[in-house]
Parts: sequence; C-alpha cells; structure tokens
Amino acid sequence: MSGSTFGLLFRVTNFGESHGPAIGCVIDGCPPGLELSEADIQPDLDRRRPGTSRHVTQRNEPDAVEILSGVYEGKTTGTPICLLIRNTDQRSKDYGNILDTFRPGHADYTYWRRYGLRDPRGGGRSSARLTAPMVAAGAVAKKWLQQRHGTTFAGWMTQLGDVVIPFEDEAQIPVNPFFAPAGEAKVAELEAYMDALRKSGDSVGARLKVVARGVPVGLGEPLFDKLDADIAHAMMGINAVKGVEIGDGFGVVTQRGSEHGDEMLPAGFASNHAGGVLGGLSTGQDLEVSIAIKPTSSIRLPKASVNRAGEPTTVETFGRHDPCVGIRATPIAEAMLALVVMDHVLRWRAQCADVALPVPPLAGQIAPQA
Amino acid sequence: MSGSTFGLLFRVTNFGESHGPAIGCVIDGCPPGLELSEADIQPDLDRRRPGTSRHVTQRNEPDAVEILSGVYEGKTTGTPICLLIRNTDQRSKDYGNILDTFRPGHADYTYWRRYGLRDPRGGGRSSARLTAPMVAAGAVAKKWLQQRHGTTFAGWMTQLGDVVIPFEDEAQIPVNPFFAPAGEAKVAELEAYMDALRKSGDSVGARLKVVARGVPVGLGEPLFDKLDADIAHAMMGINAVKGVEIGDGFGVVTQRGSEHGDEMLPAGFASNHAGGVLGGLSTGQDLEVSIAIKPTSSIRLPKASVNRAGEPTTVETFGRHDPCVGIRATPIAEAMLALVVMDHVLRWRAQCADVALPVPPLAGQIAPQA
Amino acid sequence: MSGSTFGLLFRVTNFGESHGPAIGCVIDGCPPGLELSEADIQPDLDRRRPGTSRHVTQRNEPDAVEILSGVYEGKTTGTPICLLIRNTDQRSKDYGNILDTFRPGHADYTYWRRYGLRDPRGGGRSSARLTAPMVAAGAVAKKWLQQRHGTTFAGWMTQLGDVVIPFEDEAQIPVNPFFAPAGEAKVAELEAYMDALRKSGDSVGARLKVVARGVPVGLGEPLFDKLDADIAHAMMGINAVKGVEIGDGFGVVTQRGSEHGDEMLPAGFASNHAGGVLGGLSTGQDLEVSIAIKPTSSIRLPKASVNRAGEPTTVETFGRHDPCVGIRATPIAEAMLALVVMDHVLRWRAQCADVALPVPPLAGQIAPQA
Amino acid sequence: MSGSTFGLLFRVTNFGESHGPAIGCVIDGCPPGLELSEADIQPDLDRRRPGTSRHVTQRNEPDAVEILSGVYEGKTTGTPICLLIRNTDQRSKDYGNILDTFRPGHADYTYWRRYGLRDPRGGGRSSARLTAPMVAAGAVAKKWLQQRHGTTFAGWMTQLGDVVIPFEDEAQIPVNPFFAPAGEAKVAELEAYMDALRKSGDSVGARLKVVARGVPVGLGEPLFDKLDADIAHAMMGINAVKGVEIGDGFGVVTQRGSEHGDEMLPAGFASNHAGGVLGGLSTGQDLEVSIAIKPTSSIRLPKASVNRAGEPTTVETFGRHDPCVGIRATPIAEAMLALVVMDHVLRWRAQCADVALPVPPLAGQIAPQA
Repeated sequence: MSGSTFGLLFRVTNFGESHGPAIGCVIDGCPPGLELSEADIQPDLDRRRPGTSRHVTQRNEPDAVEILSGVYEGKTTGTPICLLIRNTDQRSKDYGNILDTFRPGHADYTYWRRYGLRDPRGGGRSSARLTAPMVAAGAVAKKWLQQRHGTTFAGWMTQLGDVVIPFEDEAQIPVNPFFAPAGEAKVAELEAYMDALRKSGDSVGARLKVVARGVPVGLGEPLFDKLDADIAHAMMGINAVKGVEIGDGFGVVTQRGSEHGDEMLPAGFASNHAGGVLGGLSTGQDLEVSIAIKPTSSIRLPKASVNRAGEPTTVETFGRHDPCVGIRATPIAEAMLALVVMDHVLRWRAQCADVALPVPPLAGQIAPQA
Repeated sequence: MSGSTFGLLFRVTNFGESHGPAIGCVIDGCPPGLELSEADIQPDLDRRRPGTSRHVTQRNEPDAVEILSGVYEGKTTGTPICLLIRNTDQRSKDYGNILDTFRPGHADYTYWRRYGLRDPRGGGRSSARLTAPMVAAGAVAKKWLQQRHGTTFAGWMTQLGDVVIPFEDEAQIPVNPFFAPAGEAKVAELEAYMDALRKSGDSVGARLKVVARGVPVGLGEPLFDKLDADIAHAMMGINAVKGVEIGDGFGVVTQRGSEHGDEMLPAGFASNHAGGVLGGLSTGQDLEVSIAIKPTSSIRLPKASVNRAGEPTTVETFGRHDPCVGIRATPIAEAMLALVVMDHVLRWRAQCADVALPVPPLAGQIAPQA
Repeated sequence: MSGSTFGLLFRVTNFGESHGPAIGCVIDGCPPGLELSEADIQPDLDRRRPGTSRHVTQRNEPDAVEILSGVYEGKTTGTPICLLIRNTDQRSKDYGNILDTFRPGHADYTYWRRYGLRDPRGGGRSSARLTAPMVAAGAVAKKWLQQRHGTTFAGWMTQLGDVVIPFEDEAQIPVNPFFAPAGEAKVAELEAYMDALRKSGDSVGARLKVVARGVPVGLGEPLFDKLDADIAHAMMGINAVKGVEIGDGFGVVTQRGSEHGDEMLPAGFASNHAGGVLGGLSTGQDLEVSIAIKPTSSIRLPKASVNRAGEPTTVETFGRHDPCVGIRATPIAEAMLALVVMDHVLRWRAQCADVALPVPPLAGQIAPQA
Repeated sequence: MSGSTFGLLFRVTNFGESHGPAIGCVIDGCPPGLELSEADIQPDLDRRRPGTSRHVTQRNEPDAVEILSGVYEGKTTGTPICLLIRNTDQRSKDYGNILDTFRPGHADYTYWRRYGLRDPRGGGRSSARLTAPMVAAGAVAKKWLQQRHGTTFAGWMTQLGDVVIPFEDEAQIPVNPFFAPAGEAKVAELEAYMDALRKSGDSVGARLKVVARGVPVGLGEPLFDKLDADIAHAMMGINAVKGVEIGDGFGVVTQRGSEHGDEMLPAGFASNHAGGVLGGLSTGQDLEVSIAIKPTSSIRLPKASVNRAGEPTTVETFGRHDPCVGIRATPIAEAMLALVVMDHVLRWRAQCADVALPVPPLAGQIAPQA
C-alpha cells in the first residue's frame, strides 16, 4: 500500500488529475468469474456526482465509467480491471487568482513545501474528484461481496453543521439530496439551513455514518492489519475527514465495562457497542463507522494568508465549490468501507480458507466461505 | 505492511506472545550511525510498565529490553535491530476458567471463528502486552527524529471516565500515575474515582491526546498514505481504541469554514484547527491526535456469554487486569505516532531529498532535511 | 509489489490489454522537479516498436506515448505520472482458430486453469505488448538517473540461436535491427540466418546483455531486497526469459576463488567477475546482466495439444509473430534494469541519505547522493 | 517485501546476526491447524549444518530450533510463529585481521560504502549463517504443502567445479556429503577433488538443481509476481548465487520453437523444457530450477585489496570457511523454493479459491484447492 495504491490483495491504483483528460483506476486481484458491466458501477458514481442539487458544486460532469480491461464476455477474467472516467467540464480559469497564494485549509501550502512546485490547477491530486475512481472500484467490491456473502453497505448523514439528524427511515436516504434517513420536515430544515449558509458565503462540517451488514465473522489480521485499523486508515484518508469512530466511538470514554461489553446469547449478540469489531476482527455484527468531515476551505469570505515569498495577502475563493463537502461524501465512505472489507475477505481466504468449525457462528451471522 | 509488520521503510515486525518466553521486534531500515543503547529505550518501557501504581495491573514484569543485533560499537549499523523483552511473570492459572467460554468484549470469539482454535493463554497475540515492543521501537524512532529534526513527542490523558482533565501543566505528566497534565487537586479526584471503580469491580474508558512538535513540513503521500490516514491506522490498531481524531476532530462538524481554516501569517499559522495536517501532509504545526479507549472488558462483574457449543453461560474474569486500560496507553500512543512520523520522514527522503525551496517554511517551522 | 505493480518506492502500475483500446502505466513516487516530456520517452518506445524491420512482427503500432498527469510546466510534480499508449492496429481475427485450444509454450493453458476462463484475444495480459509501458517508465527513470548520477544504460544481443555475436563496437547497436554490437559482416550473417528461419516457419532463442554504468555504490537491501535479487526478479519476469546471470553467471561454476574474487586497487577494481554486485549491494562497477530468451512459441509448424475437453488436437499459429522474440527485448531489459536501479537509489536515499564517508569511493566510482 | 521480510502472504522476517546470541525468523500468515513441532524442522536444519563432513566449515553449531510462538497444543494457531536458533560456537578472534581491510569478493566494501560503518564480526548480516532461519521456515511450508497438495521438494548438485555429476539415483542424495545423486565412484571422485582443493587453499563454484513435484497448476500472478520471477528473486538472493535458470535455462538460446514448446496430450505434457512455468504460471509439471554458486571468497591465498584509507594492502583469510559454499546450499535452495510456492498457493487461494473448472487438469496434475 503506497501513495496511489490501496489495498493488499484487492488492489486499487488511482490515476489521473482533476483537470486532466481523465481519471481512473486499475483494480488488481479481483476474483475471476464475476459478472461485471458499466451498469454495475454507474449508479454509485451518479450518487456521488456533482450537480445533482443546488446544494453541491455546480459542475456538470457525467462521470461516465468505461471498463477498459479485465472483463471478457461480461465476466471478470482475473486480470487487472481498468476503469476510466473522462473529465468533460473543466474551468481552469476559475483558479487563476490563486497562482501565487496559499488557500487556508487547503493542501496548497503543504504540497508546495513537499514537492517544491506550485500546481494550481484545481487541486490536482488533492482534489476530491479523485474519489470518483474509488467509488467505481467500491462498486465492483460491493457486487462481489453481495453475491458471495450477502454483504450490503449503506450510509447516511447523522448531522449537518448544527442540525442533528435522528434516524427515522432508511428508505428516505436516496430521496433527498443529503443522504439523510429522514422525512420531509427534517429535509426542509436542512434545506433552509443550507440556503442560509450559501448566502453567507461560508461553509460547515458534517457527520456521517456508514454500515456494512452481513459481514463474515473473523476478518482482520492482527497486529497491524486489524479490520478497524484498516477502516480508520481508509476513512481518515478521504478528503476533509478529521475523525473516525467504530461503534460507540468517543462515547466509550464514559462507558462502564459492565455496559460496553456486548453480551453473547445463543440467539446472537445482545448489543453492538463494539461496532462490529473486537480485537481487530469482525464479530459478524454490523460494522458501524462514523466520520467527521470538516467545513469546506474554499469559501467566499476572505482569509489571511501568505504568498510564496512569505508576504501577507488575502484569499477569497470563487468558482464552483461545495458549501458542505459532507453532502457528497456518503457514497465515498461506503465505497472505501467496501474496499476494506473486500481486501480482508481475500486475505481471510488466503490464510484460513480451510478452517472448518463444527458449529456455526452465532445466529444471524455469516461464516466466511472460500 | 501486513499482519505483524508495521511501516513501509522504518519497518517493525513484532513477535512473541504474552505468555511465551519473550516478546520483541525487529526494526528494519533504521538509518545507520545513530547512537543507540538499551538506556535510550528502557525509560519509555518503564513508563508503560504494569505494576507502577495501584491503579494498574498488578503484574511485575521488569520489561528489560536487550538489543540483540543491529548495533556495533554503540551505533546502529543500518542492518536490522532486534529488540528482545523477556517475560518473567506469567500466571497461566489465572486464565483457567475461560478455556471454553468467550469473554464479552474480548477477542476470544473472533479469534476462534477466524482460526478455528481456542488459545486461552492470556490473550496470546491480542494481549496489550504486545505493545511493549512497539514502545521500544518507538523510542528508537524518537531518538533519531529528535537528533535529526528536533522533533519531540508528548502525550497525556484528557478525560478518565466522567472526569474531564483540563490542561494545566505539562510538567505534571510524569509525576502522577495518570499521565495527567494536572495538579494535586485533580489527581486526588482521579485517585478517588479509580478507587471507587476498583471496589465496584467495573471499568471505565478514557480519552488521550498525543502531540508531536517540530514536525517537518510536507510529510505524507497522497492519496492513500496520507500522514493522517497512517496516524489513524496506527492509533485505531492500538488495543481498545474505538475513535481517532486529528486536530479538532469531531468538533469540526459544527465549525464554519471561516473559523476552521487556519490562517497563515508571515509569523506563522494563526491557529491549528487542522491539528497539523492539511491535504494529508504535515503543515509543520504540532500534530495533535486524540483517541478514545474503551473500558476494559475483563471485569469482575458477570456477563452473559456462550461456550463453544453455543450454550449460554456466564463469564467473570479474575486475575490481574487494568481497571482502566487507558491509564497505560499514553506511552503506547506516543510510540505509534513516532513510528508513523519516522516512516514518513524516510519516505520524504526517498522522493524529495533534493527538493530545494528558496524560501524557508513559515516562522517556527522546520524543513525536512536529507 | 504485487501483480501489476512493480517497485517499492518508484512504483509502476501497468494497465491495459494487448487488444484493448490502450495500454499504459502509472508511476508513483517519481521525485519532483525532473524535466519531462513525451520526447524523453518516445525514442525508447520506437526502439522497441514492432514493424521496424522484416525480422519482427509486422504490426504497425506507432506506440505514441501521452503524459496524462504528473507533469506541470514541463516538470514532474511529484504526483503520479500516468503514461498512455493507444492501441491502433488490432487484428482479432488472426486469433480465431485458437478459441478452444491451448498453444504449446503459451500461457493459454495456465491462465485457463488459474482463472477458469479462456480469453483468446491476442495474449491479453500475457502479451509482450505490455512491456511497452515498462519501456516508457524506464525512460523516465533513465533520465533522472542520468541527470542525478550520470548513470547510463546499454544493451545488446550476444547470441542469436546458433550464431554467437562477439562484441565489436557499441556504436553499431542502433544501426542494425538486432541490437548487435557488430559490423556488417556479422549483421549479414544474422540476416541470412533469420531469413532461413522465417522460411522454415520455426523460431529460435537469443541471449542478451544489459549493462548499467555509473551506478552509485552501496545500492541494495539485504537480506531479501538485494540488488541482484531484484534484478533477477525483473529480468525473469520479462516474457520468454528462462535464465538470468549477473557478471560471469554460470561461468562461476568452474572458477576458482583465487580468480573470481575481484581485487581492489587504489585505482579501482582490477576485474568485474562479480558483475557489479557483491553481497547483494552494488560495488560501483558496471552492472552486467545476461538473459536467455526462449524461442517464440507461436510458429507455423504444427504442435500436438488438447482442447478444453481434454481431447487431442493440433495447433498451428498464423498471424503476426516474432520469429525471434529476443530481437526486440533489448530495450525492455534495459528499461527493467533502470527501474530496479531507480527504486534502489530512492531506497538508499530513505535509509542512508545522511551517511557521509570521509574517503571517496574507489577511483572511477560514484557515491550516491541525496 | 522489504529488507528482512520475504513473501507477501506467507511472510518470513529474518532477524539476528551471525555472531550475536541468536538468529531466527517470524512467520506471519501461516494457516492455522497445521500440526507442527521442532521435529518437523530440525532435519532440514541438520542437512544444512556446518561440521557434517570434512568438506565444509569446521564449526560446531547444533542449530537447534525452538518454536517460541504460534503453536498451541501442537498445532499452528494462525498467529505468528517465531523460530529461534541460538548461536553457540562463535570465534570472533578468527576475524581479527580484517578489521580495517576489505576482502575481495565479500560484502565488506559495499556494506561500508552504504552504511558508513565497518562491522567486521563474521559477516554480520551478509553471512550465509542467516540462511538457517529460512531453512527452518521452509520446513514449515514444505509440511503444509505436502499435506495439502502432496507437493514435495528435492535438490541435488549437478556440478562441482570442473566435475560434472550426471544424475544416477535420487536415493544417493542423502548418503554423501555433496547432495550428489550419484554412486560411490562419482563420490570418490568428488572427495578427491575437494581434498586437492582444500590443500591448495583455494575454492571453486558449483551448480545445483532444485525441483518441486506435485505443484498445483495455475500459481503465479502476472505481470510482476510471476512464479518464475519470484523464484528467480529468491534464488539470486541466496548468498553467492550468480545465475538462475528455469527449465532448460540458457539452453533455450539455441533451441528451436518446434522443439522447445512442450506439447500437450491427454496423458499429460510430452516434455518439460519450460521447467514447469509458462507465462509466469505453474503448468503443474515439475518446477525445475538451476543455480550457479560462485567460489568462496574467503580463501587462504592472498589477494590484493585496499584499506579504509584507500591504501593498498593484501588479504588472506584464516579461520573456518567452506572451500565450496555450494556443498551446503541445496537445503537452502529447496527451502526458498518451498517458500515461494507456499506464498503463491496462498495468493491463489485469495483470488481464485472459488474458481471451479468442469474438467480436471491434465493427467498427473494437481488442481489447487482451497
């Protein structure tokens, strides 16, 4: 795992730049025989796509995925799968005024210090656009996991800025632009909140939750490739994420052990404070992950900064930006979770495919299968 | 990075078992020429050691480290460094009653489902004792980083169960058994809290903070080996950790972009909401990391569970355990942070050693040097 | 390093298929600041290109490389470099008769047994065409190494079938289609040999040599990432290679130690039986590598085989093939050697950039520099 | 795979130094449930051991292996297996005269240039003694492979210096000190040859062959983790190896394609010029590997060299050394081959465990099984 490559066995190498001709990824290690076409991938890309509501960046990228290799007669061949997404809507001129300055909260300054160069073109490799190929790769993993183990993934927003979103109904998630599991009243509240925010030129953060259900029990490789450690790595690596929780997360600080430890009954686990991971391995319960997304750094309000010579200046960002990056992050977080689970299922197969236990897992759980 | 090996260039392979004859690690890739002896490593191990107060596990392990290889005439040779810590105080009999059951909140059940075997000996590879070799390796990294870049590491407890610990004075951290940066009054409060907890037979969680100062700017390798992603991976991989934050962490959810974005002035950054990482690279500001540690699962209060045949049973844990695992975790978290920073400094050297910028970093910052 | 990714720090991920729309690679970890354009890469691709003489496959692929990312204002940015080569001349129909059979000497049978699928399209991922992106990546490495350390690479054929090619003159290598360091007489002999071979419908093997000059001393990481081990890995991985030698190679079997050990004098090494590697590290002398390339398996002469049902059949291959694969392999072997050296220079920088020796290397040698 | 760690899924980290207190390895990723004890490992170590005949180094190391972790009640647990071999017979004083000089043919000079330090203690990490832990790890792999797939490994010497050893009888291999598959007459010839060599104070090289039988078909991961590429990497990484061949090796240079391509019949392959690998994947036929081992560089005859100041000097090596390193290398080469095959079987399981082909492999072949 290094730089642009994610995963050990289900390996995804991400390439391309936000304002180059195309972005994409190469998936190495996908099991052969999986039926796969662009139609399996496009829906998740559409969920992520900018321009789907007035609340997100007004940029019209169709994000149409093409499978360039690794599939023959509709099935994966086991050889690398190359997915390509062409960039169509690039407006370099929107970035003209930042050529020599560093935007507070952005990677401009850090990239410059590391590489000795200033590449101002819309974020380049720090752009959130590069999450699109990961969403595409995640869709491939999701399909295989769903077919092989019945594993499914879901995600939703739990808080947008000051507005807490109680969980009402999962069926509402695809119906509103916020991925909120909530009814009309809450959605209206969110819309009003966002409209006010946009007018102010400012931005705000968000809290999301992603879950995986039907996860085989026993995934994870201590000491350092524990399932939760790899999940944390994947989540914190998503642009703008500043916090990751598994299960009750920071809520465990005040919990007692008598309360936190999830009891086991023949009928299954009695609770899930652990969030589906114990000792770094999956318990078979739902994997529950929460992430904190910081407010967009590109805002219309001026911020103090310096230029390359170290002289003071001011920065105001124009152009197209998300007032709340978190609104589009749910499909990304789901995809990253799917990639981690996929990688760990393959790792399990490598080491433990012939482990046979005489008793099944607890009720409602799935044993991994080779 | 896989299983028992941590890091890409400063690679630490952890070996041994909690109740075996010894534990240790192999450090591969350490730069040559560093003056190193056991005396550089032992202090951090002592800080972590059980039996240093009545609030932690009463087990008397001297945790004396021995350097078996990789050092000649007092300096690292560049060849692998093997550090060994012999186990002296093992009481297998304390674990006799768990042979056939699974302790809620422990890795027993998950290990059994993955490996098809039940190894009841004191946690085996899931034991927190295996953090000792990482603390040892971290001490080596700390020394090199301090000599080469002036980087230093510190850590402290910010909350123990219900008791919030406001930051008073860093000099107090080594003076009390809680790694609390607080004076006598607060320490007395913590001691009383812990005494009551021990009597009750229960346990509680904790919140810790670790910081790195004098971190060179520009460390981290997008997309997937971002500095914060690797930090999250290292922290979440520590036993009992359920949440990780960088900078303001989950506090960013309600922040406005106008507030969150750290402004830059010729004199340096004006704030550090980012916690020292932007776009996945270090900004040169203090790296600030917080972690949530769950309450110990080994408590004297009975919990419902099942045995291997799936029949209901009860579990009470006797023997020696920490009523609050978080109390000893500070040196561990510091060590893991040091290992991540070390690995990234070496990665920086590989790719960017010849990058030369005409202007220095912002005031108070350090440029990495080859 | 796994599957489609080569290298640890200078990482090249190869993608695409022989008969797909394009092939290419992603280079991760390239140092920033290197001046790079397509003009730096195209010449090596042209050397490798099919259709440059009547002795190689008559297929007209321009193999024009495009830099899709990683370069800004003519210099590498330090972010991933994506190189694309579009396929233009694909004749699937030439492969129609092999749909259900397995060609002896080809990967057909082994791929089918591993993946459970038969993908007959011109070799797919087993095609030698996939060496083109590696040649492109190798050109990038060559440029950086040449600029930074004065390292250069060369290669030539030492034997074609039964015809031994004594070394006459390096300047002749680009002048004839065989990469032979020989004058007109020998070239004429080779041409006649090849014409006879083509008429017969058969094929023959070849022996090549590649050298690197001006290699910094001290590259290589024992135990398992020794420079020669990584070179062997890279060379044996080239299609059709069945043997690899360093220095005197199999000639060492009969050598005495009194003869083999290269003596050191203040003026430099007295000989180079070692081929530039000792103890797995570079000595600073020329790296000398030889490889054996097997005869093409695609010949017009019929061979016995089986089909997927296990029934006997015969196979004759029509279409466009190299009567001697070895003729085009020299640029490929050079490229792979450059990639290995590049990776090791970066590794050296990571671990040893601050090692300073008071005395210079032996005369004529280069010390690595950060 | 880096430095001291070998393999991707069956990972072996080698630690310790030739003249330190102990050497050993950590095996990560071993499947659980394998019955394992020291008795499974010791025989291969004994085969490798010095002091077993007058023809090898007179050093009395019992090389007794101890299993420190990873086994419970006689079976592997799936957690890391630590194998330890204590050094008992160390004579540092034998190396006193090389403190400031560099022995031609040894790694002394290259290590000094890389690390900036001169560690004269008997080779340190460049010593062939460090192959012992790999032999131990290889024994674990051999057992699992033999139980799971019926795979077996064998090795023998095919040439010692000028003396060619035709293959007569595999049963003779363990009977003579040369691992020669030959009868008394040839053995006597070899003994006389060696006696003369020892008297002369010189050394000579050797050629070995190792084979694996009952190898599942379809192992290997193109492009870069082809089975033959990984075999070459493992073999060339063995101390003193300068050449590696698969199948007919350099013999393919003069072969015609009509002869080289192994035909397939319902009864199986008709020949094995390929040596068991096609397109980088195993064919199911015997894996046949040959290696060239250079003559020992430590000889009693003086060689010209320089000291650290670059001044000319002479080097004669006293102490205990092998006059022909190749004599003990057979168990090492077998072990490395076993480790590569093991790693690839686990990789196969990860990606292809659910691939089901309706027809079995060719007669006499084994399909891999999860």
